[in-house]
This record gives sequence, structure tokens and C-alpha cells, in this order.
Amino acid sequence: MGEQVLHIDCPDEKGLVYKITEVLYQHGLNIVSNQEFVDATTDHFVMRTAFEGTESPNDVVADLEEALPPAANIRQAEIGNRSIVIMATREAHCLGDLLLRHSYGEIPARIDAVISNHDTLGSLTRAFDIPFHHLSHEGLERRAHEKQLQEVVDQYAPDYIVLAKYMRIFTSDFVDRYQDRILNIHHSFLPAFIGANPYRQAFERGVKIIGATAHFVTDDLDEGPIIAQDVLPVNHTHTAEQMANAGRDVEKTVLAKAVKLLLEERIFIHDNRTIVFE
Amino acid sequence: MGEQVLHIDCPDEKGLVYKITEVLYQHGLNIVSNQEFVDATTDHFVMRTAFEGTESPNDVVADLEEALPPAANIRQAEIGNRSIVIMATREAHCLGDLLLRHSYGEIPARIDAVISNHDTLGSLTRAFDIPFHHLSHEGLERRAHEKQLQEVVDQYAPDYIVLAKYMRIFTSDFVDRYQDRILNIHHSFLPAFIGANPYRQAFERGVKIIGATAHFVTDDLDEGPIIAQDVLPVNHTHTAEQMANAGRDVEKTVLAKAVKLLLEERIFIHDNRTIVFE
Amino acid sequence: MGEQVLHIDCPDEKGLVYKITEVLYQHGLNIVSNQEFVDATTDHFVMRTAFEGTESPNDVVADLEEALPPAANIRQAEIGNRSIVIMATREAHCLGDLLLRHSYGEIPARIDAVISNHDTLGSLTRAFDIPFHHLSHEGLERRAHEKQLQEVVDQYAPDYIVLAKYMRIFTSDFVDRYQDRILNIHHSFLPAFIGANPYRQAFERGVKIIGATAHFVTDDLDEGPIIAQDVLPVNHTHTAEQMANAGRDVEKTVLAKAVKLLLEERIFIHDNRTIVFE
Amino acid sequence: MGEQVLHIDCPDEKGLVYKITEVLYQHGLNIVSNQEFVDATTDHFVMRTAFEGTESPNDVVADLEEALPPAANIRQAEIGNRSIVIMATREAHCLGDLLLRHSYGEIPARIDAVISNHDTLGSLTRAFDIPFHHLSHEGLERRAHEKQLQEVVDQYAPDYIVLAKYMRIFTSDFVDRYQDRILNIHHSFLPAFIGANPYRQAFERGVKIIGATAHFVTDDLDEGPIIAQDVLPVNHTHTAEQMANAGRDVEKTVLAKAVKLLLEERIFIHDNRTIVFE
Repeated sequence: MGEQVLHIDCPDEKGLVYKITEVLYQHGLNIVSNQEFVDATTDHFVMRTAFEGTESPNDVVADLEEALPPAANIRQAEIGNRSIVIMATREAHCLGDLLLRHSYGEIPARIDAVISNHDTLGSLTRAFDIPFHHLSHEGLERRAHEKQLQEVVDQYAPDYIVLAKYMRIFTSDFVDRYQDRILNIHHSFLPAFIGANPYRQAFERGVKIIGATAHFVTDDLDEGPIIAQDVLPVNHTHTAEQMANAGRDVEKTVLAKAVKLLLEERIFIHDNRTIVFE
Repeated sequence: MGEQVLHIDCPDEKGLVYKITEVLYQHGLNIVSNQEFVDATTDHFVMRTAFEGTESPNDVVADLEEALPPAANIRQAEIGNRSIVIMATREAHCLGDLLLRHSYGEIPARIDAVISNHDTLGSLTRAFDIPFHHLSHEGLERRAHEKQLQEVVDQYAPDYIVLAKYMRIFTSDFVDRYQDRILNIHHSFLPAFIGANPYRQAFERGVKIIGATAHFVTDDLDEGPIIAQDVLPVNHTHTAEQMANAGRDVEKTVLAKAVKLLLEERIFIHDNRTIVFE
Repeated sequence: MGEQVLHIDCPDEKGLVYKITEVLYQHGLNIVSNQEFVDATTDHFVMRTAFEGTESPNDVVADLEEALPPAANIRQAEIGNRSIVIMATREAHCLGDLLLRHSYGEIPARIDAVISNHDTLGSLTRAFDIPFHHLSHEGLERRAHEKQLQEVVDQYAPDYIVLAKYMRIFTSDFVDRYQDRILNIHHSFLPAFIGANPYRQAFERGVKIIGATAHFVTDDLDEGPIIAQDVLPVNHTHTAEQMANAGRDVEKTVLAKAVKLLLEERIFIHDNRTIVFE
Repeated sequence: MGEQVLHIDCPDEKGLVYKITEVLYQHGLNIVSNQEFVDATTDHFVMRTAFEGTESPNDVVADLEEALPPAANIRQAEIGNRSIVIMATREAHCLGDLLLRHSYGEIPARIDAVISNHDTLGSLTRAFDIPFHHLSHEGLERRAHEKQLQEVVDQYAPDYIVLAKYMRIFTSDFVDRYQDRILNIHHSFLPAFIGANPYRQAFERGVKIIGATAHFVTDDLDEGPIIAQDVLPVNHTHTAEQMANAGRDVEKTVLAKAVKLLLEERIFIHDNRTIVFE
């Protein structure tokens, strides 16, 4: 079995690390890495422990549930054994980058399928032998379109949905259905330039740096917990369109980074912020 | 004489570079560097030319005025021959960094004086042999306080005023008096987190990068033309206070960079944006 | 016609910019951007001028040759009208990134073909509809193999050859044949870690930053003029293999940047260094 | 009492985290943060645990010595309660930056004194009310000079010695006397450009990035364990001297970062590499 990861979070109290590592020790497990953090503003404890695999992870979790306070959330996952569905619209750079990285083994997951509301990205996707679903939104009410999306997504039952420049907004129902499981790349350094056309806004404001933000999708547009951000310098020679072109590099890098953090189970969500153990 | 710089901007038309360099050639001047840019969205021409000094710069400017369209703005300055007044409140990092850089010759200008509404920074300033003026705002109406500031500033007649964490807002009258000559450092990556307490806002939003912005001061608070910006990564372990501490490094670096760009006459303001020839 | 670019370099003397822009003005050309630099250590003048196209670029060059000193090198190119051949071995990240960028219009050139000494990258290349030539080096003497490479390259007569992780060393004859036209990506921050296995060397030295270097290929291995470099942070958790994995991101970004600089004719080589007008 | 830190390293074996946290739990201590790493190439375990202070840290260490294998190194320190002596030669930027940061509380230690082989930096040091010792090396044999240095250092008995651009090389005897306790800033991105005049070397090689390296001083010049590195971009417009000027910013930032890591006891040395828990 591969490397396994435990995610534990609960209100802080004395002895939590001791109680957790005692259980692992009793199971004869070897800790490969161990990261722990207590959020001082909310007194909340989070810990990620990677250990060399056991054949009975369920027993470990059961014993941890016994040893820890009832409020503790305990999650266990085997790295490399996850799956995603990617959604995109017409731009190729984020999707192409993910497909490419996946092709040489850098994305530790199965890519079950790509879904798009256009057919532009079909041949790119199929070149990497990944199923492509074209579900046009033309002539469909938002909910009707989402129903089609949902059917395709659920047929694959992926661990996560990755929006690689999917340019439509979801209803609350869709978001709630996949709570904490939809990852988006936003083409600005949030919270600057929320809303439409961030590069146009950035150009007009005359900023010297542009950025991109990977975040979980919540009901509040552009307000979900931030996972990763990065920036690059621009200057007066960049038009809004050239900023958008330059921005592609940082969008794809930030998205790939966030996807890997997610699939390696390095992210906790707490209080609309993320704790990321890099 | 030291290196001299010409700043020329006007609506674009054919032959401008040729007409300008012809005048310099006729005066026997040697161009050290030459940077030119046409803003395609407004069809505006800007050019910065550094040349080895002449003893009659006024004649050069007069001949350029003859050769170029009447709408052209022509400015000439000798690098190294400028002066600034610095204003600060209580934080030492930006002021101290400027004083330190000035002490080993990195700021190409005279620092005429430091003015503060508190006396906290007096001993630091005097340690570098720079005059310090403590003008408390306590018990004074805003305009009355600004009148005092203005008197001290005008007694030095500096080329520029540098706000090194001066934490009070100016009236329009004060800003207009020193139009395009007041430089400020704002402790966020503008336009994210305008207004009070940007690091608190950044913490609450859970961003992964914080920044600082050097900009010209205009009537619209936090909306003046941006000169320079930089960022640094933060993560879940940073409280709002720790973000503020970490932010000091980027604040002082960005401010020092902007001050040097300004004093080397590398900045044009056009359409509430800057053109910066680095 | 598209944007055209003039490259001029010669020993510095007074009036060069004036003489050049006079010729352009007489031809009624509009300068879009103009960058000039005098290398003070060698007193050498270089200038890149982009102008809106003329139908008789040859006449412009002829008039410039008349106006300038005989030692001047004058080169003219139309941006977007260039071609490259890519060579790679087995790693997909640099080649895939170039193919992907090319597919959405970010590489301003034709990719004539991909040549490899292995067949690993054939299906990736063909997925982007680019011809793939597998020329194995197995059982061939170096010169015999290079003769095969040369035949395929010359059949396309590309402007440049891009080595996207081509892991073999060329003879002087091959390098000389394509002087100043072969671009390589080296997987270290040169001149640190020249030679084999730079990530292993980096790990053993315990560095906190790794990098990549795009450079022209010359007879002196790893010593050619540097075009672009970038780095990324690493730490004690990275093994040599993980450094290599992380390094892929910076390798592909630096290579793509250098290829674009080259194809936009922004690079001058002088004195084994480059002048890059970004 | 302030925050206390435990440093533990030993050959890896199962149950170490459990055994350590058990001792802390029995002492009723609350773990604030806990970082652990196993170096897979040497099978070595390192752990840094910060906990809220106890009045009997010696008892904790004694119990840990009992619980852990005899080969374990156990070190305990109270953050904020440390002291340094700074040595410098003539350049003000690194020393000035440390003094400035110290003045507003950013360096968690006492600065006992500054020692220099020149008197250039005396007035700067005294402006911050720190004792300054001018120990000229003129006319002295190396060992005789070091004897003087050693006498002044030992009179303060600092935890660490920080070389802030101290431009002389020590004998093995001096280095050995303060083993793992001398921190240096080297003005290049090591291992590139070891030896004299790294910026001249960087200019001649035509690099596009320069850097600085903070490292522990060992007998092998420029070969000690690296603590922190950073870089900044340069280009063809930088002469060797301008690279050196630009480099000051990164030198002072990297040195300050390393000094803080050291004083917060975040650094382990193992196998001539560092493990740095940021």
C-alpha cells in the first residue's frame, strides 16, 4: 500500500499529539512526517500525519475516535488513489497544463473526464486519452444545464471537481452538493478585482503586479477559502490583453499547485480560511 | 556636471524621436540611454533620454520646444541634485531604511528634514544628522496642522515629499499644493484592502500573499497612480500582527525603490497610470 | 504586413540614434518602440526598433547601411514569420509546454518538426499535429548521428533550433554550423552545478534555491551566453529527485520565455553576454 | 517565562514523537507548535517543539534523556533570551539593517557589541547605543589579531557571532572555537562564484540573477551549511558595480532572515546541510 495520511482537527486541548501518536505507535506504524498547527485566534488544533501504510486503516481511525474528544474530525486517505473531474470552457492553458502534468505522472490522481460547455477543448483532451463531455449551455436554463453536468460528474463519483477556467457561475444547489470539493482558479489576485474582466480592471488601475488565486468554491462568488496565490510583474507596456496573456502562466502554475496540495491531502478548511501544510 | 535627463511627453506623431535626437546631436551631446514608449490606448508618446551633461541645458530645452509640437511637455533635470522632505508617524522601518540607504549614498538626493506628528522617531533621525521637526496634531484642527506642516516643508522647498508611514490623511488643498510631488507607501497590495487596517483585512480573508504599494498621493485616497508594488508569501501561521511584521520588509523595499525611481526621473504620470522606465 | 524589427549594433559614436531615426522618418515609418543601450565597458551600441511594416524593408536596410559606419551590423526581421525545430530526448515537460503554448498562439513561429533520439515523445508531438522524427543514436558514432540530425534540420531550414531537454552533447562542427541559433535549457542556475546531475549536486550542497538557465549553445559546454534564468525555493524536505521534479516548472517557464524573446528578436549577443530588450 | 523550544535529533526509530510528547504531557505542558522531519537519505530524525514555558525545563530535558535512546541530542532554549556579537568591516548595509531591526524589536536577542577591523562603522553603531570595538588588523599577524577578537568576544560570551560583511578569513582555530555558532553572509548565490569578487564574476558570466547566501562558517571557505538564500534579477544594464549595489538589498534581507531563524532556534545542522523549520 502507498503512503497514507491522517487529517485530524478539533478544539485544542493538552495532550492531543501524544494521544494520536500513541495510537499510531500501538499499531506499529512509522510516521513519515507530521505537521501540526494550533490556530491561536480560534484555539483550533489541526494535524496532518503521513505514515507508511497499514493494511487496516479503519482500525487506526476507530482507535483514534476512541482516544480523542468526540468533537474531533478524523479523516484518512491513501495518497495516489484519488480521482478528479475537470471542467473548462474554451481556454486551453490550464486544462492543457494539467493534462500534460498528468501524462508524466505529476498529478497523483486519476483524471476521470473533462466536461466543457464548448467543444473547443475536445481534441486537446482526447489527445491525452481522457474522456471529453461537451454539455452545451445554449438554450438551457441554468438549473437544467447543471442537472446535465451533475449526471456526468456523478457517474464518475470523483473525489474533487477542478474548474480549469470554467467561466460560468454555479447555483447554490450545485455548490452545496459538492461542498469543499470544488476547486477554482480565479484570474486575479483576490480580493483585488473581483467580478468580471479582472485584467481590464488591473490595466485601468495601473497595477504593477497581477496574480491568480486558487480557492474552494462557495456560495459567495470569489469569496471561498483561498488555497494558493501567486503573482507576476507587469508594467506600462502591457495592455489589458497582454496582461491576460502574461497571466496565463501564473494561472496555470497556481492551479497545478493547488490541485497537488488537494490530492496530497495537505489542506484543511477552518473558518473560511485554509491551513496548508506544504 | 552630472548626468542629465530629459522627460518629454506629447500626443504621438511620426518623427518625434528623430526630431529630439537631432537637437541633441546638434548640441554635440552624447546619449547614454534612451527609452521611449507610445501608449497605444491613448496614442501618447513618452521618452526619457539620459545624456552626458551640457553647460547650457536651458538652450537644449529651448531648441526642443522649437522643434516639437506645442503640446509637448519638456522637463530637464540633473540627477543627484534633488531634495526631499520625509514625513513619518511612529513606525521606524521605512524612515530608518531611507536614512540608512542615504547614509551610504544610495539615495541620490539631499534629505532636507524629517517631519513627524509624534516625537518617537526624533532620536533615530538625529542619529543620522538630519533635522527633525515634531509637529503634533494634538488639539489642532486638520487645516491648522497642515498649515504648520506646509510652513516647514516650504522653508526647505524640496522637489518631493516622501510619506514613510505617515498615518494621517491630507486635505485636498494640501495635496493640490504639491501635485504629483507626494509619494506614499501603502501597506497593502492595492487595490486589495483599501482603507484602514489592511493586514487585519488580509488575515480575515485568508490570503496567501501580502504586499505593499508605492503611489502618488491624489485627492482620491488610495487611488493615486501606482509606482511600484511587491509582495511576499504568508500562510496560516501568520496572525494579523505577524503579517504586519512580515509586511515591513516589503514596505521598506518598495518605498526605497519608488524613491529612487522618482529621484532618477524615471516616472511619467499619464491618465492616472505611471510609465516607469527602469 | 506585421510588425517589423530592426537590430543594429556597432561601436558607439555620437548621433547614431539620430541617424537611424532619420532614415526611418524619411521612409515615413512609425516607430512603435525603441530600445537602445550602450555597453559602457566595451563602448558598444545596440538598438532594437519596432516599427509598423513597410513594403520595402530592403530599402530601409540599404539606406541605413549608407547612413551608418561600415562596422554596423544591421538585421531586419518580420515578427511572426519565423520557424523553429525542437529537439528533445525523453522528458515531456519542456516539449509539451512549448507545443501547448504554440497550440493557443503564444509562440510566434511555426514549429516545423520535433526530432528525438528516442521515440518516447512521438505520440505527444503527433497529438499536436507536428511532424516527429525519431533518430536513434544507438550504435552510431557521434558524427554519424549528427549527420542524420543535420539532414532533417536542413530540410526544414529553421531560423532556430530549440533544445527542450535534449540530453546529448554536440560536436563543435554541429554547433558551428548553427552558430548563435541553438537555444538550450540547462537544469541548473548556471554557473552553479555545471556538468552532470545538477539536482544531485544541489541536494548534496544543501542549497535553498534551485534554478534553470536558457542559453545559446557554444563549443564550451554550459558556457554559452545566458538569455534567461529563474529559480524556485527548495528546502530540507526535498530529495535530489524531488528537486528535479520541482525544477521542471522553472525549466519549462524559462525555456518558453527565452524562446519568445528569441522569436521576437529581443536578444543581442555581444562579448559572450546577451543584451535582452524585454 | 517566554516560549521555550526543544530541539531533538537522533537516528530514526518508531515511536519517537510519541515518547517525546508523552514526557511533555506528563509535565502538563502545552505544545504550541511541533515540527518533525526524517531525513530519508540518512534515516535521521529531527524535531522542534515549541511549548508554553515551564519553571523547570531542566526536569523536562532529564526525563526526555531517560525516555529517548542514548544517541539523542536534546537541546532546550528560551526564545528571546539570547545574545549576539556582530562583526563587520566597512560596509554599512547589513550592520545598519540589523541595528535598525533590533531597534524596533524585530531581532529577538541582545546585541552585545559590534567589532570591526575598521572604524568606519563606529558612529552608526553608537547611534543605536551599542558598544563598538575597533580592532585593527594593521601590522598584526592573523593569529595575533584573532586573539584580540577572541578576547572581546569572550568577554560578552554571546550565543552566536554574526558576520555582517566581515571581509577577513578566520583560521581553523578561531572557527573551531565557535563551532556551529558563526553565521556569515556571502555575496553570491553559492556555490556559484565562490572566492573573491563574486559580482565581478557574475557580470563577466552575464548572469540574469544574482543572489546572497547565509551560511554557518566552517573550515572550508564558502562550504559551510547553507541556512538561507535569495536572489534578484539583473540585466545587461548592470555593471559589476551596479550588481554589487543591487545585491546589497538581497544580502541584508537574507542575513536578517537567517539571524531570526537562528535566534528562534529553527535550524538543525546535519550532514553539512541544514534542516530549517520555518
